[in-house]
Amino acid sequence: MASTAVDVPVALLGYGTVGAAVNRFLVESSDEIERVTGHRLRVVRALVRDESKGRGFAAETGIVTSDFAAIRDDPEIALVAEVMGGVEPAGTYVLELLAAGKPVVTANKQLVARRGAELFAAASSRGVQLRFEASVCGAIPVIKVLREALVVSNVHRVLGIVNGTTNFILSRMEAGDAYEEALADAQRLGYAESDPSDDVGGADAAAKMAILATVAFGSRVRLEDVEYVGIAGIVREDVEAARGLGLTIKLVGAATLVDGRVDVRVSPSFVDARHPLASVGGAFNAVMLQGDAIREIMLEGPGAGGTETASAVVADMVSVIGTIGTGFLTDDPCWRELEQLPPGELRAPYYVRLDVDDQPGVLAHVAERLAGHGVSIARLVQHQAEGGATLHVMTHDAPTGDLRKALMEIGQLPETRDPPVAWPVVSDRGGSDFGGL
Amino acid sequence: MASTAVDVPVALLGYGTVGAAVNRFLVESSDEIERVTGHRLRVVRALVRDESKGRGFAAETGIVTSDFAAIRDDPEIALVAEVMGGVEPAGTYVLELLAAGKPVVTANKQLVARRGAELFAAASSRGVQLRFEASVCGAIPVIKVLREALVVSNVHRVLGIVNGTTNFILSRMEAGDAYEEALADAQRLGYAESDPSDDVGGADAAAKMAILATVAFGSRVRLEDVEYVGIAGIVREDVEAARGLGLTIKLVGAATLVDGRVDVRVSPSFVDARHPLASVGGAFNAVMLQGDAIREIMLEGPGAGGTETASAVVADMVSVIGTIGTGFLTDDPCWRELEQLPPGELRAPYYVRLDVDDQPGVLAHVAERLAGHGVSIARLVQHQAEGGATLHVMTHDAPTGDLRKALMEIGQLPETRDPPVAWPVVSDRGGSDFGGL
Repeated sequence: MASTAVDVPVALLGYGTVGAAVNRFLVESSDEIERVTGHRLRVVRALVRDESKGRGFAAETGIVTSDFAAIRDDPEIALVAEVMGGVEPAGTYVLELLAAGKPVVTANKQLVARRGAELFAAASSRGVQLRFEASVCGAIPVIKVLREALVVSNVHRVLGIVNGTTNFILSRMEAGDAYEEALADAQRLGYAESDPSDDVGGADAAAKMAILATVAFGSRVRLEDVEYVGIAGIVREDVEAARGLGLTIKLVGAATLVDGRVDVRVSPSFVDARHPLASVGGAFNAVMLQGDAIREIMLEGPGAGGTETASAVVADMVSVIGTIGTGFLTDDPCWRELEQLPPGELRAPYYVRLDVDDQPGVLAHVAERLAGHGVSIARLVQHQAEGGATLHVMTHDAPTGDLRKALMEIGQLPETRDPPVAWPVVSDRGGSDFGGL
Repeated sequence: MASTAVDVPVALLGYGTVGAAVNRFLVESSDEIERVTGHRLRVVRALVRDESKGRGFAAETGIVTSDFAAIRDDPEIALVAEVMGGVEPAGTYVLELLAAGKPVVTANKQLVARRGAELFAAASSRGVQLRFEASVCGAIPVIKVLREALVVSNVHRVLGIVNGTTNFILSRMEAGDAYEEALADAQRLGYAESDPSDDVGGADAAAKMAILATVAFGSRVRLEDVEYVGIAGIVREDVEAARGLGLTIKLVGAATLVDGRVDVRVSPSFVDARHPLASVGGAFNAVMLQGDAIREIMLEGPGAGGTETASAVVADMVSVIGTIGTGFLTDDPCWRELEQLPPGELRAPYYVRLDVDDQPGVLAHVAERLAGHGVSIARLVQHQAEGGATLHVMTHDAPTGDLRKALMEIGQLPETRDPPVAWPVVSDRGGSDFGGL
């Protein structure tokens, strides 16, 4: 099948913005795709809920259908791209397609994060691929790089800015906007939904980190295994404190392998200005992969957008066609079951802010409580505040559980005015204090 | 061939540091490779010049050979990795292997840059792959991303820090070292050769940019098509001037498609501190790819090192096995012949430094000469210097040829003390002044 171009009939589940862009790419870039694969991919069916619904673009005659079985049972269709979204009926459709021996490409983050186990089992048992590049970080080919380029690298850490909405909001706050202004702008520009809670609350980033950790470590990480905190608690004082310390606040997802156990979390983090993640601005995403053979590789780019997502879907389709029948990447990416690291055991440096009475002995009391739990201070800055003082403390690496215990005690000191604020620190690359988060 | 693992015999040309690391990865990561490909890759032959030469590691019995024909003519050998380096005899060997229908993976930058045309023609005519990830940017999978992930993206610009030695030296100069100290450190740490001229002179970066531009634009860029300037002319005054303007000096390669014509150049450049390339420190490399569908994607990581290179070679071997027999990526990556943009036509913003007499009218004379060639000033800072003044000028985008003409005239003004210094500027992403370089 190598020398002369053969039309490969493909189908789409869903024909909205992304589906239409996929179809457009397959038509407009058919020469490029033929050069790379030797084949021309042609959409012969696109599943929609309602065939009669008007669409903002010309739907080719005879392509649109509301009959899923017509796709599943058509032996000509070599490959299906799922771009309809939602967990159901998309999940059932994808399962049935895989069971019918058709490779599937999906852009569906919720589907992969929630039902990955059964979907990959189905793909594996039929020896077909399920690709899902577009489900995380839009146009950034992080799944391809993890699965195909870093095969022998033993990736043990994934750090990511994987939610563009929150990165946009935090970038705006850094430029001086209040949280509400920044969020309103994000909504106006289409970066945030009218109900932004999945983004700002951290759930979206948690789902992406679950997928990335699963692929990187070869062990299934479920949504409920990811501890996450969103950005709603970030105030101007945090942004200013970070800047004063040469740091910048980002919503960072971190997946870490510690002695064969897995820790995945998402949290606002104080990132060292010299760290590559610090310069990721606006709605962009970035993922840093750390492994034995490669030290660290970072990928950065647009994390969302219809065109970007469609481009990732088409790249997956091209990769499926280029590997079909070879047995490549048909196994479940999970091949082992690793335990979770118990909560509190992950070591990280922290930024802590304390509002205290400006009295002799306060500093000693705070330092004693930290030392009592084995937390040592890397840096301390004291500022005068209204009738009191604000302490900005950067700690060395410590188990997060121990830090929390120390902060509980500090919060109960009579001189402490408000509950302490604490955020993990992601510091410069290399060296021990890059344990970060 | 999908379900049960089959041993795939492979051979190496060269068995030095990289070759030994490739063999070690294939042995140590055989489970990972089998999970991904369904196969175990086993080195059955490794070509060396002298079989009797002692090696710092255990050479498996019967693997080492000095007989190339025993590899070329062995029908069992499914794939060969060339890790011997040098243009000859490596080039002849690779050609003969491809002509014999064997896919080849190479880590050889000079070979790909100098003899790409005939090598890819040979691969294409036999329908086998020639992969070359390790020939540029070490462990960073930029070739895979360009060829497999950005198929429909119409990449029109590649910006890269592709030489780790010079980036290390410039990072050290930024920290206060003199050029000579920084170079000596680079040599002591193994980042620079004892004869560093290929690195510091820019030839190494030029060869890598030729390969990247060729793949990105699908048109062959030869070494002699790349205009390059190294870092030997960079002095402390440049580093300080850059810092004062919120910029940092990097050796940047830029490949640009302008109205269907190609411009590839390497030059020390003043990079805006907010640009993602500015934070690439030490011996790391980074490549930014700009295209229609993806806006921009940046990849960053270690650009050299035996382990990193071997990891890229193994990834290529895995990718060859995963796509064998499908016709994927067997065509020459060059499919068109684009013209070169005439020298001087590329538009870029520039930093210009002028040492002048501190007299009335100097500024007017300088501004007149720039304006006379259509170069407009974006920013100007004047500093007092010994008995004179130093002007730091940032220009808006202008054709480099016009800027050069203006600088010639300015150099001949009676008030100008030294020939003007000018470096291209790479500014913040987005917006028109990101035409950079």
